Amino acid sequence: MLVMHGPNLNLTGVREPGVYGTETLEDINRRIAAHAEKRGYACDFFQSNHEGELLDRLHAARGAYDGVAFNAGDYTFTSIALRDAIAAVGIPVVEVHLSNVYAREEFRHHSVLAPVCAGGVYGFGRQSYLLALDALAAMK
Amino acid sequence: MLVMHGPNLNLTGVREPGVYGTETLEDINRRIAAHAEKRGYACDFFQSNHEGELLDRLHAARGAYDGVAFNAGDYTFTSIALRDAIAAVGIPVVEVHLSNVYAREEFRHHSVLAPVCAGGVYGFGRQSYLLALDALAAMK
Amino acid sequence: MLVMHGPNLNLTGVREPGVYGTETLEDINRRIAAHAEKRGYACDFFQSNHEGELLDRLHAARGAYDGVAFNAGDYTFTSIALRDAIAAVGIPVVEVHLSNVYAREEFRHHSVLAPVCAGGVYGFGRQSYLLALDALAAMK
Amino acid sequence: MLVMHGPNLNLTGVREPGVYGTETLEDINRRIAAHAEKRGYACDFFQSNHEGELLDRLHAARGAYDGVAFNAGDYTFTSIALRDAIAAVGIPVVEVHLSNVYAREEFRHHSVLAPVCAGGVYGFGRQSYLLALDALAAMK
Amino acid sequence: MLVMHGPNLNLTGVREPGVYGTETLEDINRRIAAHAEKRGYACDFFQSNHEGELLDRLHAARGAYDGVAFNAGDYTFTSIALRDAIAAVGIPVVEVHLSNVYAREEFRHHSVLAPVCAGGVYGFGRQSYLLALDALAAMK
Amino acid sequence: MLVMHGPNLNLTGVREPGVYGTETLEDINRRIAAHAEKRGYACDFFQSNHEGELLDRLHAARGAYDGVAFNAGDYTFTSIALRDAIAAVGIPVVEVHLSNVYAREEFRHHSVLAPVCAGGVYGFGRQSYLLALDALAAMK
Amino acid sequence: MLVMHGPNLNLTGVREPGVYGTETLEDINRRIAAHAEKRGYACDFFQSNHEGELLDRLHAARGAYDGVAFNAGDYTFTSIALRDAIAAVGIPVVEVHLSNVYAREEFRHHSVLAPVCAGGVYGFGRQSYLLALDALAAMK
Amino acid sequence: MLVMHGPNLNLTGVREPGVYGTETLEDINRRIAAHAEKRGYACDFFQSNHEGELLDRLHAARGAYDGVAFNAGDYTFTSIALRDAIAAVGIPVVEVHLSNVYAREEFRHHSVLAPVCAGGVYGFGRQSYLLALDALAAMK
Amino acid sequence: MLVMHGPNLNLTGVREPGVYGTETLEDINRRIAAHAEKRGYACDFFQSNHEGELLDRLHAARGAYDGVAFNAGDYTFTSIALRDAIAAVGIPVVEVHLSNVYAREEFRHHSVLAPVCAGGVYGFGRQSYLLALDALAAMK
Amino acid sequence: MLVMHGPNLNLTGVREPGVYGTETLEDINRRIAAHAEKRGYACDFFQSNHEGELLDRLHAARGAYDGVAFNAGDYTFTSIALRDAIAAVGIPVVEVHLSNVYAREEFRHHSVLAPVCAGGVYGFGRQSYLLALDALAAMK
Amino acid sequence: MLVMHGPNLNLTGVREPGVYGTETLEDINRRIAAHAEKRGYACDFFQSNHEGELLDRLHAARGAYDGVAFNAGDYTFTSIALRDAIAAVGIPVVEVHLSNVYAREEFRHHSVLAPVCAGGVYGFGRQSYLLALDALAAMK
Amino acid sequence: MLVMHGPNLNLTGVREPGVYGTETLEDINRRIAAHAEKRGYACDFFQSNHEGELLDRLHAARGAYDGVAFNAGDYTFTSIALRDAIAAVGIPVVEVHLSNVYAREEFRHHSVLAPVCAGGVYGFGRQSYLLALDALAAMK
Repeated sequence: MLVMHGPNLNLTGVREPGVYGTETLEDINRRIAAHAEKRGYACDFFQSNHEGELLDRLHAARGAYDGVAFNAGDYTFTSIALRDAIAAVGIPVVEVHLSNVYAREEFRHHSVLAPVCAGGVYGFGRQSYLLALDALAAMK
Repeated sequence: MLVMHGPNLNLTGVREPGVYGTETLEDINRRIAAHAEKRGYACDFFQSNHEGELLDRLHAARGAYDGVAFNAGDYTFTSIALRDAIAAVGIPVVEVHLSNVYAREEFRHHSVLAPVCAGGVYGFGRQSYLLALDALAAMK
Repeated sequence: MLVMHGPNLNLTGVREPGVYGTETLEDINRRIAAHAEKRGYACDFFQSNHEGELLDRLHAARGAYDGVAFNAGDYTFTSIALRDAIAAVGIPVVEVHLSNVYAREEFRHHSVLAPVCAGGVYGFGRQSYLLALDALAAMK
Repeated sequence: MLVMHGPNLNLTGVREPGVYGTETLEDINRRIAAHAEKRGYACDFFQSNHEGELLDRLHAARGAYDGVAFNAGDYTFTSIALRDAIAAVGIPVVEVHLSNVYAREEFRHHSVLAPVCAGGVYGFGRQSYLLALDALAAMK
Repeated sequence: MLVMHGPNLNLTGVREPGVYGTETLEDINRRIAAHAEKRGYACDFFQSNHEGELLDRLHAARGAYDGVAFNAGDYTFTSIALRDAIAAVGIPVVEVHLSNVYAREEFRHHSVLAPVCAGGVYGFGRQSYLLALDALAAMK
Repeated sequence: MLVMHGPNLNLTGVREPGVYGTETLEDINRRIAAHAEKRGYACDFFQSNHEGELLDRLHAARGAYDGVAFNAGDYTFTSIALRDAIAAVGIPVVEVHLSNVYAREEFRHHSVLAPVCAGGVYGFGRQSYLLALDALAAMK
Repeated sequence: MLVMHGPNLNLTGVREPGVYGTETLEDINRRIAAHAEKRGYACDFFQSNHEGELLDRLHAARGAYDGVAFNAGDYTFTSIALRDAIAAVGIPVVEVHLSNVYAREEFRHHSVLAPVCAGGVYGFGRQSYLLALDALAAMK
Repeated sequence: MLVMHGPNLNLTGVREPGVYGTETLEDINRRIAAHAEKRGYACDFFQSNHEGELLDRLHAARGAYDGVAFNAGDYTFTSIALRDAIAAVGIPVVEVHLSNVYAREEFRHHSVLAPVCAGGVYGFGRQSYLLALDALAAMK
Repeated sequence: MLVMHGPNLNLTGVREPGVYGTETLEDINRRIAAHAEKRGYACDFFQSNHEGELLDRLHAARGAYDGVAFNAGDYTFTSIALRDAIAAVGIPVVEVHLSNVYAREEFRHHSVLAPVCAGGVYGFGRQSYLLALDALAAMK
Repeated sequence: MLVMHGPNLNLTGVREPGVYGTETLEDINRRIAAHAEKRGYACDFFQSNHEGELLDRLHAARGAYDGVAFNAGDYTFTSIALRDAIAAVGIPVVEVHLSNVYAREEFRHHSVLAPVCAGGVYGFGRQSYLLALDALAAMK
Repeated sequence: MLVMHGPNLNLTGVREPGVYGTETLEDINRRIAAHAEKRGYACDFFQSNHEGELLDRLHAARGAYDGVAFNAGDYTFTSIALRDAIAAVGIPVVEVHLSNVYAREEFRHHSVLAPVCAGGVYGFGRQSYLLALDALAAMK
Repeated sequence: MLVMHGPNLNLTGVREPGVYGTETLEDINRRIAAHAEKRGYACDFFQSNHEGELLDRLHAARGAYDGVAFNAGDYTFTSIALRDAIAAVGIPVVEVHLSNVYAREEFRHHSVLAPVCAGGVYGFGRQSYLLALDALAAMK
């Protein structure tokens, strides 16, 4: 499976640890990989601050993965292009957030991606990714 | 832990199987119980169509459980009273939905409960409950 | 057929007679029963101020009646739970109002139940129920 | 009594039969006339695609009829002029729709005529007209 | 000058005398003609319930009159076509209302014609027309 | 007089003491009773988390009390049914809130009950009830 | 009668002559006085940039004048206090504007004063005041 | 094919040439006819300021034409009746505008016809009609 | 303590007695003074129609009074400046209204002052002030 | 001329063929090139999923092309940056869409690019591009 | 140049020092004067809580100053009268705020003055004034 | 310090000189550098049309600069990702605009970046950058 991280997530563990925790993105990826391995499925990782690169990567995921756990970061709230790419890839995508976005500013309450994702997991920190992968695994 | 089901969920497996699947609520509870047992924690179950009974049950959960996996059904979108009860119980509550509510009518896109829940899982059918319990377990 | 009355309708004939007329709910039920008998179909009656009891009663109507004439009173404007119950019962439900709700306050102009009902009749006092039953009878 | 049909209703039975049924407007008028005769009251019929002609006809109905069953078609949602004409005619007007307008596009959910009509009947196909006439008859 | 009356104004003096006064439109036109004569300018009159006829008449007013006193009735609030016709005629048009439209329902508070009219007079009954003609006369 | 407390108020003194104070509802009721006794009028108390029970109790208050001091809790913001019940009971009802609801979340700023209550008192903790009873006493 | 001018109108003839004309407020007052004299009624004038002074002056107009021609300038769009003062003075007030406010920025399209004024005249420059006084004279 | 022009388009070439060009509607029709002839298909033309006549003409187009190039003028923004007529005619209708409506006032940005048209062409003056006919020809 | 009255309240007992009662402001102040004396605290009074004077008076109240009972009249709904002054004075301010503002026009339903006041009392006529002073006294 | 394709259009012919047709983008480009050649003008093509690359390419088009046929895909609805780039390039840009965007989700109904484009063509599949190029050619 | 301070700014250094700093307005004025002197231009100062006095002072600034640095305080968000006065004075006015108004409550995010000011500086405490004066000096 | 320019700003001096002036971005950078040198601090410059590159550059600014003067161009109004990056960098960022954005189209009036910036300067052309740097220098 593919784990994708959107803009600013490369700063995880560095910025606003009260909101996002103190683990770095590398730490989180390592924990995800360990969890995936224990459950018996492989994981690739991708992070970019560029909407276009995330689009390109999603396109390339067609046929290459069973599913995508996607934390699109702030593009969650603005990118219709990512929404259409998710609709186009033809494999289940699960929306992931580290924090409970609904407990934060109002502009983080409306995901433009949600209607075309299979489902979503939010609010559990790094654990959100693990649960998203479990959900994808259960879909197969 | 406590698993709570709100209004109309007693009809699960009977009404609109295209949206909610064909398992009955009893089937789902049995699967949840089996999963919980496998992971090593106990579960109680509660369903009601009455907002007041759900409020009473939440109040009673204070100090009695480590967490609540709560599918408030349609009260998710209207009940400020349940929101305040969740804020008051002092134990983590995870919002659960069988379907991807964001892929349905607009009035199902705004949860009044979400800001006071620990997090949420939606869109994975019965699996949503299992993941919510795993999330609660990981919080302890 | 089933005739259901929602919150505060037990006060009909007592409160605001200018809006709702001077007949009590018992009077109205008697007139409905007489009309139904004349047209050759039987009627049961149910009134409750409790949203949960109305939900329970609607659930119980599945398979037990050919249709429901439902004056949900003020829950008409707020209860998504009743909406989903109507969608789930699998028999035609006709929305009924004694008064012309569109000639009153704005918050009475938007019925959350209407989209899942078969149709509606409003503004004719007690006569609204009789017409709703005639409509249900014509559907069979 | 007067039965008025607004714009595009002359195409009934021809266009979108899934929504409006397969009877033509002439068929429907014949059924209405038969029903009215059985109940003992006379009916005239009028159809126009011209808002101005509907206004003129409503004006002419003052003092000439006991009531009007009016399916204003799409002018229901836009014509303040028809609203004021209804308020001015001084005889009861009942709003009629073949389909359940609340189960269709949002712009069909707000009738500008409703607040000045006596009441309304919608969603029962041709039967909506019959019930509207019965309601008018009961008002006398 | 041209005095134009829109939909339902032919009922003036007949309908809702509390709002519009008891003079008929003929009475009002006679008073307007007398006033115009006293001030030394001629007047033609036109009334129609048909938006299209009002459009045609406005088009014909180009070059034929020094100005138009126009009470567009309910089309004031809905007709972009009349707005563009006013903008196109190239002679000053003054918006006229018998009643104070801002003291009535909210949907009468927004005139789509106002931005392209020279000015407006409202709330003075029949007197509104006289003042509008005086305003047009002062513009020459 | 009748003092009514709505949903979650049974948790007063337990939950969020920063917002609602540390007295329990029993403490508050005892203080209200003492105050009422000093001023020379009797008080009954009722608390429920069930909207239907609050409706039933309000109905029963008709003719039985001189007035009601009603803290409807979260139903203040959502229950049109309670609004209509207040309008129907025919005795003055005073809206009460412990906290200053306007200094909290926006969804607590719009009371659907306020337009049909006699008046309101908010923001003074337990004291709000005492003032509401004084206001009711002054109305007699 | 009383002619009142609100904020910034003391700059008339100085600022933005394209919008407001080149006559000064003194010129305009002189023209108004001449017109009033010709029609046989007396006029007083008042201008202030202070909302409080305009309120005080309106209060003082009770019983002292037959009517007020009031150009409230920008307070037209914001001052609920002036609205209530107009409702309280018990003599007819006519809203006046030099320019066609509906042809300008959107925030000039909603007068909070209009619903409590007798009527209004706008768009005719200095002539607007003359017509307003004629309207007041015709009301006596 | 049928080319339809709505309200005020009879004034094309006369009013506001900066927006609509200086060709008259007859000139434009002649250019359209020439273009159609060159491409080998016949054209009929219809213009009316009357919404009702446009509705009647659209109804008559059923089965009589392969398609309609329709510039509904200002009815584009208000006429749900035309929308339903387009949906009912069963032949492709292409929305046409001379000007770029999106570069003009906001109320010209929302076409109620667009969702039921096959497609649209706007902003190219007379050329818009030619392209619309080419589009219709390519659809056959 | 300080009792402040805002714009138009000097007309109390004169204007709209149906809404505000027949006592003059002097009568009310005398009743307030008597009540305060009975409860053992002193009162000063201030009324102005000028927002600036109310601001100046509030500023001067810093350190000079234990609290302010403030009926800001129509400035309640518009004056952010008064809101910030209340926040700045550092003593409790209680919002007071004679009438139930929520039973009147919608623009009277949103107080910009409420979030920074200690609490509020409305709907009890002159009694509202007495209760507000009692509330302030209980705060000490 | 330049033909630009925005995000996800590289998937044309692959994703959602019901909406976008079965031709690939290469097929479409070939058809466009053939059409352009037949009409006697040359075409370059550019596709990118990166908003920044589309901006760079538009900047480079200044002075290099007579016009641009631009299908901005989902950036049509969100990119103010592309809007300003179009306004800045100084050559006509025509907005192109394969599908009738107004017959799809509401968020596809508002193009932020439209006001600064010369015009637009939508709904005719690959044909939309050909017509856009014809329109550009006619502008020269 | 003229430095103007609006309502409540006389309390600067006294109220909410966390937001506005601990310098008094006199301190700030002294720092501004020193900075102006260093840069070689003179400064006058004016503060008032009265909207009318600020209007009068702005009017008097016409021709008397090269520019105005204006912190209108809360009138920034409500005073259309000040907006029109700024537009009328004919000298550049720069909007100044001590705090970053966009980081505070939403009602402080919309300045009605901004569109007619030359520019603005906010968020830098006392420094905001110095920069505004530098900006005005650079404009000469 | 770092000076960042967003999308389309590379065209400054080329496009719409009436709005943005005739200096090129290189000219402006040279003037900024000269000003900075005079005030005794160093400056780096960065421009990109790519949101992702602006994000990457902001991330890299952490710890490398004392502050950033950031003209985000059109991303100011749409990029939540840049907002979160600014919040994450931990050094003061000042929002800069050449033009007075509030005197332009409404969609330029809401900056999503403003709440997390230290402050802002707009409307003074190239001077806006100089003042922003002075503001940053004064913060140290």
